[in-house]
Amino acid sequence: MKEIRVAICGYGNLGKGVEKALLNPANNDMKLVSIFTRRNPESITTLSGVPAISIDDITKYSNDVDVVILCGGSAKDLPKQGPEISSMFNTVDSFDTHAKIPEYFDSMNKSSLNAEKVSIISVGWDPGMFSIIRGYSESILPLGSTYTFWGKGVSQGHSDAIRRIDGVKDAKQYTVPIESAINRVRSGENPNLTIREKHLRECYVVAEEGADLNRIEREIKEMPNYFADYNTTVKFISEEELKEKHSAMPHGGFVIRSGETSEDTKQIVEYSLKLDSNPEFTGSILVSYARAAAKLNANGEKGTKTVFDVPISYLHRNSEELIKNLL
Amino acid sequence: MKEIRVAICGYGNLGKGVEKALLNPANNDMKLVSIFTRRNPESITTLSGVPAISIDDITKYSNDVDVVILCGGSAKDLPKQGPEISSMFNTVDSFDTHAKIPEYFDSMNKSSLNAEKVSIISVGWDPGMFSIIRGYSESILPLGSTYTFWGKGVSQGHSDAIRRIDGVKDAKQYTVPIESAINRVRSGENPNLTIREKHLRECYVVAEEGADLNRIEREIKEMPNYFADYNTTVKFISEEELKEKHSAMPHGGFVIRSGETSEDTKQIVEYSLKLDSNPEFTGSILVSYARAAAKLNANGEKGTKTVFDVPISYLHRNSEELIKNLL
Repeated sequence: MKEIRVAICGYGNLGKGVEKALLNPANNDMKLVSIFTRRNPESITTLSGVPAISIDDITKYSNDVDVVILCGGSAKDLPKQGPEISSMFNTVDSFDTHAKIPEYFDSMNKSSLNAEKVSIISVGWDPGMFSIIRGYSESILPLGSTYTFWGKGVSQGHSDAIRRIDGVKDAKQYTVPIESAINRVRSGENPNLTIREKHLRECYVVAEEGADLNRIEREIKEMPNYFADYNTTVKFISEEELKEKHSAMPHGGFVIRSGETSEDTKQIVEYSLKLDSNPEFTGSILVSYARAAAKLNANGEKGTKTVFDVPISYLHRNSEELIKNLL
Repeated sequence: MKEIRVAICGYGNLGKGVEKALLNPANNDMKLVSIFTRRNPESITTLSGVPAISIDDITKYSNDVDVVILCGGSAKDLPKQGPEISSMFNTVDSFDTHAKIPEYFDSMNKSSLNAEKVSIISVGWDPGMFSIIRGYSESILPLGSTYTFWGKGVSQGHSDAIRRIDGVKDAKQYTVPIESAINRVRSGENPNLTIREKHLRECYVVAEEGADLNRIEREIKEMPNYFADYNTTVKFISEEELKEKHSAMPHGGFVIRSGETSEDTKQIVEYSLKLDSNPEFTGSILVSYARAAAKLNANGEKGTKTVFDVPISYLHRNSEELIKNLL
């Protein structure tokens, strides 16, 4: 297969994470060719030196790019950009508003099928790697309970959602697993836990001068899907404090499937991640699936896929080595 | 899709684990129809009540069975049974002699392609679930080291290999991870570890009366692939002691990928299993992949596959529910 030409759409934390993964020599079967942005391209200096190009010009590049990795936010960017860009290119994205995935799938599938391209949606670590573990574990242990815990770590999607509220200058949101709940799961108790019993959400918010802090706090706490079902704390801090104390983007979490194959025969599967940088890890996953999108489309596939549809062999540049090296 | 008709070939511990999984109502899209055995079928009473049938008669059942789950040992059964049975049926097996997988793949692929059937080989937890984790992790974190540890637990393949030695009446082999090695990996040191530095092999052997114990011990310790590369201890014990102290078949282990996405940015993936019953867990995995084999073949696929080729959606009976429930 020829070199896969990749573009990034959206040059925030995630876009930069994708860029770093594409600069890794292990991924040099792929070549980053451009970065599309909504900002003034002249204001951007890319780490890799590839040109930043206005997203308004993206249609001109349909013959020069094999896959576009969409790095916008799930709340407002992807629902619009996804269907538009997948009507011209193979795409990969990390759409992560769980409740709206079926609707997003349908909209992407329509444009991808029409363009005879492949789009792989909701790729990252959750949805993504964690979904994969849930998918395998619930098939092989159909009797049992699955628990997913996140954090403590910064959620890009949730921070982004806060930043889009009027009067918010910047924000960071930490997802915090509730220790007593984890301990109950690990004891093998198989408890029924509500969303609220498993995690807290801690928000650090920089407000614009004169903004109505009560309104901002209320809008955060009542935001459906993102915050409404959790106990959420909101703390307003200065821009300096946010930079100093909340600049790193660690994350992590785990998925546990606690099942039985016969009476009193317990089988416990656990998958955990300890991440120094969430956007770099998510970016690396997106790059693997960008390779898969290009290979699937080159094999004549079209339409929208999720991690449940993509065999592991498509994620590797030398799939013929897999049996020898990794099986 | 119609009910999938499944047969088991080989009614030892693994065959019984598969049978239990097929009796689980969650798997009632599949129906166990028969158990093929090398023993006198009249000597066998099956847990499920399905008939035991001589393996010599298997050719008569080619219209009555959609998938045969091969539950023989990797050392002597599968290299012969696999190619024979896959020339008539879709098959799934847990061939686990790592070094011989490429050769076994070729032999299975030839017979499956010729029969226009699907065979999925080397399914279980290692090879199998652990291979899956290695496959994903090494794609998304191409810079780093992967460590696989097993145990402490009984290895069916290794116990089986000992039992095939002349003069051995029965045997159990425990794989034991070496704690100091695990601690070095978890510290993030990324050490280079030899096979011998990672695990010990403990063998408990019941010899036949008058057998040459020195020869048996030597044959075990020098057996290629299975024992030669490890520090192995062999202890001869009575049949009663084996039954009393070594009847359970717990196992477990973990895969760790310790990678970097940029300088000093560590990303650590860990997958672990704690299994009360190794054969029941492996049996459950085989049943999921039996479903996949039938579905793949019904979709026109043929030839030999591994876990790297089978999308997660094929493991599930209701794949259209996956996005909503597990993504």
